[in-house]
Amino acid sequence: MKITVSRRAHFNAAHRIYRKDWSDEKNNEVFGKCSNPNFHGHNYELVVSVTGTINPETGYVIDIRDLKSIIRSEVEDYLDHKNLNLEVEEFRTLNPTAEHISVVIFNRIKPHINPEHNLKITLYETARNFVTYSGE
Amino acid sequence: MKITVSRRAHFNAAHRIYRKDWSDEKNNEVFGKCSNPNFHGHNYELVVSVTGTINPETGYVIDIRDLKSIIRSEVEDYLDHKNLNLEVEEFRTLNPTAEHISVVIFNRIKPHINPEHNLKITLYETARNFVTYSGE
Amino acid sequence: MKITVSRRAHFNAAHRIYRKDWSDEKNNEVFGKCSNPNFHGHNYELVVSVTGTINPETGYVIDIRDLKSIIRSEVEDYLDHKNLNLEVEEFRTLNPTAEHISVVIFNRIKPHINPEHNLKITLYETARNFVTYSGE
Amino acid sequence: MKITVSRRAHFNAAHRIYRKDWSDEKNNEVFGKCSNPNFHGHNYELVVSVTGTINPETGYVIDIRDLKSIIRSEVEDYLDHKNLNLEVEEFRTLNPTAEHISVVIFNRIKPHINPEHNLKITLYETARNFVTYSGE
Amino acid sequence: MKITVSRRAHFNAAHRIYRKDWSDEKNNEVFGKCSNPNFHGHNYELVVSVTGTINPETGYVIDIRDLKSIIRSEVEDYLDHKNLNLEVEEFRTLNPTAEHISVVIFNRIKPHINPEHNLKITLYETARNFVTYSGE
Amino acid sequence: MKITVSRRAHFNAAHRIYRKDWSDEKNNEVFGKCSNPNFHGHNYELVVSVTGTINPETGYVIDIRDLKSIIRSEVEDYLDHKNLNLEVEEFRTLNPTAEHISVVIFNRIKPHINPEHNLKITLYETARNFVTYSGE
Repeated sequence: MKITVSRRAHFNAAHRIYRKDWSDEKNNEVFGKCSNPNFHGHNYELVVSVTGTINPETGYVIDIRDLKSIIRSEVEDYLDHKNLNLEVEEFRTLNPTAEHISVVIFNRIKPHINPEHNLKITLYETARNFVTYSGE
Repeated sequence: MKITVSRRAHFNAAHRIYRKDWSDEKNNEVFGKCSNPNFHGHNYELVVSVTGTINPETGYVIDIRDLKSIIRSEVEDYLDHKNLNLEVEEFRTLNPTAEHISVVIFNRIKPHINPEHNLKITLYETARNFVTYSGE
Repeated sequence: MKITVSRRAHFNAAHRIYRKDWSDEKNNEVFGKCSNPNFHGHNYELVVSVTGTINPETGYVIDIRDLKSIIRSEVEDYLDHKNLNLEVEEFRTLNPTAEHISVVIFNRIKPHINPEHNLKITLYETARNFVTYSGE
Repeated sequence: MKITVSRRAHFNAAHRIYRKDWSDEKNNEVFGKCSNPNFHGHNYELVVSVTGTINPETGYVIDIRDLKSIIRSEVEDYLDHKNLNLEVEEFRTLNPTAEHISVVIFNRIKPHINPEHNLKITLYETARNFVTYSGE
Repeated sequence: MKITVSRRAHFNAAHRIYRKDWSDEKNNEVFGKCSNPNFHGHNYELVVSVTGTINPETGYVIDIRDLKSIIRSEVEDYLDHKNLNLEVEEFRTLNPTAEHISVVIFNRIKPHINPEHNLKITLYETARNFVTYSGE
Repeated sequence: MKITVSRRAHFNAAHRIYRKDWSDEKNNEVFGKCSNPNFHGHNYELVVSVTGTINPETGYVIDIRDLKSIIRSEVEDYLDHKNLNLEVEEFRTLNPTAEHISVVIFNRIKPHINPEHNLKITLYETARNFVTYSGE
């Protein structure tokens, strides 16, 4: 009996869509105002979903308090109120698109989850734009 | 041509996360404040999703009024304004975690759905915590 | 590495659930008030989801501005503030149920998407009723 | 001690923004696509707010079940799945703008409310456009 | 220059609408299923609004982190996962209707706010039912 | 007969809470992580509300398309995807707190509104924090 347990979280950050190996002109040509060199920002809304079988002892797939705590340490404490391009290790050489941010979040959470569980990340960059990644 | 039709509903209930075969101390140790012996409660938001082919006569997979009516009799009338632990048959011996509630709702709705249709239950215990179950 | 990129959009339209080859009485008998001959209407909320691999040059699966522009021309300009039964070619002979509207939207967007990408349409007819179609 | 009690409801309807004493051309010139002669429609979301003192016997300003029932008979049963221009008495000679619809709803509910209570209507025509009227 | 600063919070609790000086029959007759002796529950959503002039030094009316901390200690820690009737001092003799809960929350927060500021409480018992109280 | 017409809009921006005449240390001491020198950002949600009497010719207080267009030119084009501290004239010497941003938006929209109408700005910095300003 497989159940998916999901937890919603959020963080605020600044970024620019930007490739270091391109000029500001080239970045602007491809990415438009999203590449503003002075940065812009978002309230990122995050849904972390864990799929597995119910633990017969607790009736939980995962204790939601544990999931909340993993999200806090691996995502909120790490990304909240940060400049993704300047202050987050993974984006030193990686363009912080929503796609890449979801992969980075997936990779940070995955080691803390039961290896028999599946993990899926949904990241809302705005209320109208969001991405989903499940490691496939 | 497979389409999924979803209907959102809701009910309010009291519960405690609790195993009868454990002491209150042990329940509190494992489940924390969710095991408060005086109960707490939630506005449960429910999404019931039915997947099947379009009926060429009506253009419907399922008449949403029928789905609404099944949810009313099997879920809302049965669980709304109830104490899950004390008043709902299925939870006499089953810990009313979100995972188990979604299984109970699945099992109550399934017999009323066309057997060729797939059923999926999404249950929001709070705006930040939710589970999904599709009988697999 | 497969990622799904989703864009939310909306349009307002009038319709009635109605088969031309049935009398108004028969339509009313099967579809109830949804078949009101004077029409009723909805704020349709739409989520268009595109799944594919990340383009290593841009870090995008699809530039969300391109997706936004496809939705504008193929859905919003085509359906917004329209009477679906009277003014939209596809519904001259097709009953404009949510199921059929999602198929029509899928078919209009599909040719504009990279053929290696998968497409999924989620259409909210109201906040409580919605359908999902992915061309399978 | 004054408290405001609010209840949210909804209905779907078709309309066109339209003055009978103007030509279709003039209506189109002033109201644009909102005046489409074939109608368009909305999911109207409604909030009805009643302000008064707490009844010391019940702890209620107004029993929310009574308010729900007034909204059902005066608004939902009267407007849901209707064509406002063609089927609703008040709009035979009144342009069904959101402003006018909120006044009509106010006037229909007011006689059923305790005359010492204040009434306020908030009407969402879309998630982005809404109006508020309190009879002043 | 007066500005209102608002902070949203939430807590889950069990309650029954109930007067101790009435029999269960009388309570049931007046309050219906809301008076279920086994309790039911809600996810209460709370908005706390503080109105005052901008502090020229900080640009804040009130530091939102201070407001968040007041709400945590006075409301969330005090009411979350509690049975309002059995475990909360103020409701030993007061019927825990949404109206009364908003007054109790107002009275608990008020002493911690600058006396020159105005305070308003909005309490959502469900997504469809909510109350507002500003101490007038 | 006074009606309030509201329009919701949004923009994304980077900022830091920061006084130029204070050191980074002093800014950090007072404003915490909100003063990160590398900036952070938000999806600002905006509600602009205009109160006035209904124009008997149109049935509108204000044509919502005009309001939408004023918001686009005065707010969205001016602030979207910008760094408020570095790129927006008004914040060269003004700390971009939510309070001050709402005043700036009010002052930019006010001259474009009928002087007999009242204007109110609600600005959501996050889903949980928001401010309201009406020029009083």
